[in-house]
Amino acid sequence: MLEDLKQKVYEANMLLPKHGLITFTWGNVSGIDRNSGLFVIKPSGVEYDVMKPEDMVVVDLDGNKVEGELNPSSDTETHRVLYREFPNIGGVVHTHSRWATTFAQAGQGIRAYGTTQADYFYGEIPCTRDMTSEEIKGAYEYETGVVIAETFRQINPDHMPAVLVKNHGPFSWGTDPFNAVHNAVVLEEVAMMAFHTQFLTGSREPMPQVLLDKHFLRKHGPDAYYGQKKK
Amino acid sequence: MLEDLKQKVYEANMLLPKHGLITFTWGNVSGIDRNSGLFVIKPSGVEYDVMKPEDMVVVDLDGNKVEGELNPSSDTETHRVLYREFPNIGGVVHTHSRWATTFAQAGQGIRAYGTTQADYFYGEIPCTRDMTSEEIKGAYEYETGVVIAETFRQINPDHMPAVLVKNHGPFSWGTDPFNAVHNAVVLEEVAMMAFHTQFLTGSREPMPQVLLDKHFLRKHGPDAYYGQKKK
Amino acid sequence: MLEDLKQKVYEANMLLPKHGLITFTWGNVSGIDRNSGLFVIKPSGVEYDVMKPEDMVVVDLDGNKVEGELNPSSDTETHRVLYREFPNIGGVVHTHSRWATTFAQAGQGIRAYGTTQADYFYGEIPCTRDMTSEEIKGAYEYETGVVIAETFRQINPDHMPAVLVKNHGPFSWGTDPFNAVHNAVVLEEVAMMAFHTQFLTGSREPMPQVLLDKHFLRKHGPDAYYGQKKK
Amino acid sequence: MLEDLKQKVYEANMLLPKHGLITFTWGNVSGIDRNSGLFVIKPSGVEYDVMKPEDMVVVDLDGNKVEGELNPSSDTETHRVLYREFPNIGGVVHTHSRWATTFAQAGQGIRAYGTTQADYFYGEIPCTRDMTSEEIKGAYEYETGVVIAETFRQINPDHMPAVLVKNHGPFSWGTDPFNAVHNAVVLEEVAMMAFHTQFLTGSREPMPQVLLDKHFLRKHGPDAYYGQKKK
Repeated sequence: MLEDLKQKVYEANMLLPKHGLITFTWGNVSGIDRNSGLFVIKPSGVEYDVMKPEDMVVVDLDGNKVEGELNPSSDTETHRVLYREFPNIGGVVHTHSRWATTFAQAGQGIRAYGTTQADYFYGEIPCTRDMTSEEIKGAYEYETGVVIAETFRQINPDHMPAVLVKNHGPFSWGTDPFNAVHNAVVLEEVAMMAFHTQFLTGSREPMPQVLLDKHFLRKHGPDAYYGQKKK
Repeated sequence: MLEDLKQKVYEANMLLPKHGLITFTWGNVSGIDRNSGLFVIKPSGVEYDVMKPEDMVVVDLDGNKVEGELNPSSDTETHRVLYREFPNIGGVVHTHSRWATTFAQAGQGIRAYGTTQADYFYGEIPCTRDMTSEEIKGAYEYETGVVIAETFRQINPDHMPAVLVKNHGPFSWGTDPFNAVHNAVVLEEVAMMAFHTQFLTGSREPMPQVLLDKHFLRKHGPDAYYGQKKK
Repeated sequence: MLEDLKQKVYEANMLLPKHGLITFTWGNVSGIDRNSGLFVIKPSGVEYDVMKPEDMVVVDLDGNKVEGELNPSSDTETHRVLYREFPNIGGVVHTHSRWATTFAQAGQGIRAYGTTQADYFYGEIPCTRDMTSEEIKGAYEYETGVVIAETFRQINPDHMPAVLVKNHGPFSWGTDPFNAVHNAVVLEEVAMMAFHTQFLTGSREPMPQVLLDKHFLRKHGPDAYYGQKKK
Repeated sequence: MLEDLKQKVYEANMLLPKHGLITFTWGNVSGIDRNSGLFVIKPSGVEYDVMKPEDMVVVDLDGNKVEGELNPSSDTETHRVLYREFPNIGGVVHTHSRWATTFAQAGQGIRAYGTTQADYFYGEIPCTRDMTSEEIKGAYEYETGVVIAETFRQINPDHMPAVLVKNHGPFSWGTDPFNAVHNAVVLEEVAMMAFHTQFLTGSREPMPQVLLDKHFLRKHGPDAYYGQKKK
């Protein structure tokens, strides 16, 4: 069942330690098959060096486990809400990568200070609000997804493929599981540089809008001309 | 004698350089056999690349060397006090890992700013008080353990498996030597992120208590549901 | 055509990930053959682990692609202007290396605080001005080169082989592609140390001019005596 | 001639890249044979991956090259003065390691904030004064050694095996070339931690003297009890 997607999700999970984004099992990647409405996610708490493709767990968009011996990641409910609310995304990643988590712990979005960020994120990478006691004590992982969706009411998730969950860490997404991991790597890089940029300037004044537009739009949208893609 | 425990303590010691927690021989791991009341610890000042399982030293809880050619770690007396005072722990680790030692040198505990810390430590990781001249000039390594125990008078060591010894560095512990090393790795990660979080916020305001409770208790205690453990 | 230069440019590009200067494809190296007036540059958006010497693209100084299956780097126009304006250089590198990009994002040049910088850069590594809306919306990559050249009106590019493009990242150059990469590595090192030096001093006061002169001139110019070169 | 010492000096030089202390050829190690009054040093500007033991250069304490095809390190005169002024040392190291160089660029010594430093350095690692124009324009590398010696008029170099040369970088030394490299590694570690400790405390208040004494003296001097040495 969804063997190809399981393989991809497995491989995408294995990229997290390769890129230095996780310690121990502190991360998870999922991917969705939009035709069947099923997504595949890493099992909870399994070590990366013993994990196998067939350990991946299949879950439906109502949150039912459809296939798999193991429990799915404890963050499965958050992934589920993101797939439901952001209809164009094909993969989701959660990590506690150091620099992005630093901003999440500070409750600050990552302002756009340079073209590295502008090439991937169309502006400030947002941070969610504090969750209420009711949300935390209730269906916590589900509510985490709801709070992310609320944060994106005025933001296009296809142009802003990451969020910081306050006092927690980053979620990122993309067109498929590999693209979601790619965006998680970029997020960590831009977080590191934004941190140090703020130190040098002593301010959080973002880059000029016209330069942000230029870089985002030369890689995304109808007039993109970066890479080997046809215009 | 305790060959299995020697092997484990040896392997746990070898994890310290693998995880980047030590430079040269600046660290030691021990493990205890609660039935016999004996613990096994790394010898003092031996290079990691020549150390062998049979070099591990066996010590009793009165501080007598029971077996071993080499001198035990100079921190043996501190380990001994921790085993005596914290009856549920099975392994102890000492390192000079960079970020945790930075907080120790500053004499500051590591406040809980996010769920990474909350998953392992139930609140602020404490820093000990200054030791007195008498304690330093006397049975210094033993007194270091006594000062740690004093710091935990109001803290449950099973919920707070690490401490910072002021102007020195961290000790951590766990259910066995491997779990103690695991906690030493987590400590270093959360110290790095706490340092930078404090820079961004300009404050030491901790995370909401309700979120700390949620994360600590979903992994620890009777209602834990993280990982593959049965509820 | 220019097979030897293609091989060199390929090898120089492969040094970027080796030295930790790039993430994914965020960098490019070119080299010029001054006799023919043709330069060779990395193709746009090709992964480093599949790139081959024959993928390199040949471009003339009017910006026409002369040979190559793939599109040249999107930064080709910037390289072209640098070769035209700086007649002694033989190679150009662009990266988003972390510490240099941090200064670029802050819009600050890197002051000379020590002999590491003085050995390679004769003073402050400059940062360009903000580009105008017209420049950004127009021939952006070409105008980036023009703004760099403007920045060097009073600076000798042979004595200052790098620049920071504001809100973007560094360009460096050298006598050939390998020397340009060498200078990119040095730039990242001195940026890291300058950042932290400024924190310690709380100032941007540069090193004494006499020491800067001594170090730059003992390695460069007619009286150089460093290394195995004859005086 | 001094083949054994050449081999040791070669091996000690090769440890510099292994420990991450140098970029390119930015470092050098020497060792002295006190019987003959000759020392062996790395040649100038030779890449580490092609350097061989027989490339090492033999120099006498008057600064004459006694044996060797290549020019000795451009820092040879500084090493020579250190051997002459500090009669107990057997090896000298110079690097531009990042954190130590940061302090050197800031013109600040590294205060002792913790036992990691106290285990090796008996107090603050000093930084030299500004060199005069005459010293810089004259026999610069020789005068660098003289300024270091001046800095140690009231400091015992056997208890303080490193110095920061202002706006330049660190020199360290030891009983032999390997011990000098060991001290260079420790210097970099304590510099990193001192930097961040100062940030957390906002001060440069050092650790208690009694704790400094305890740690330095338990490893050094007649009452040392650390490691496998007999008391």
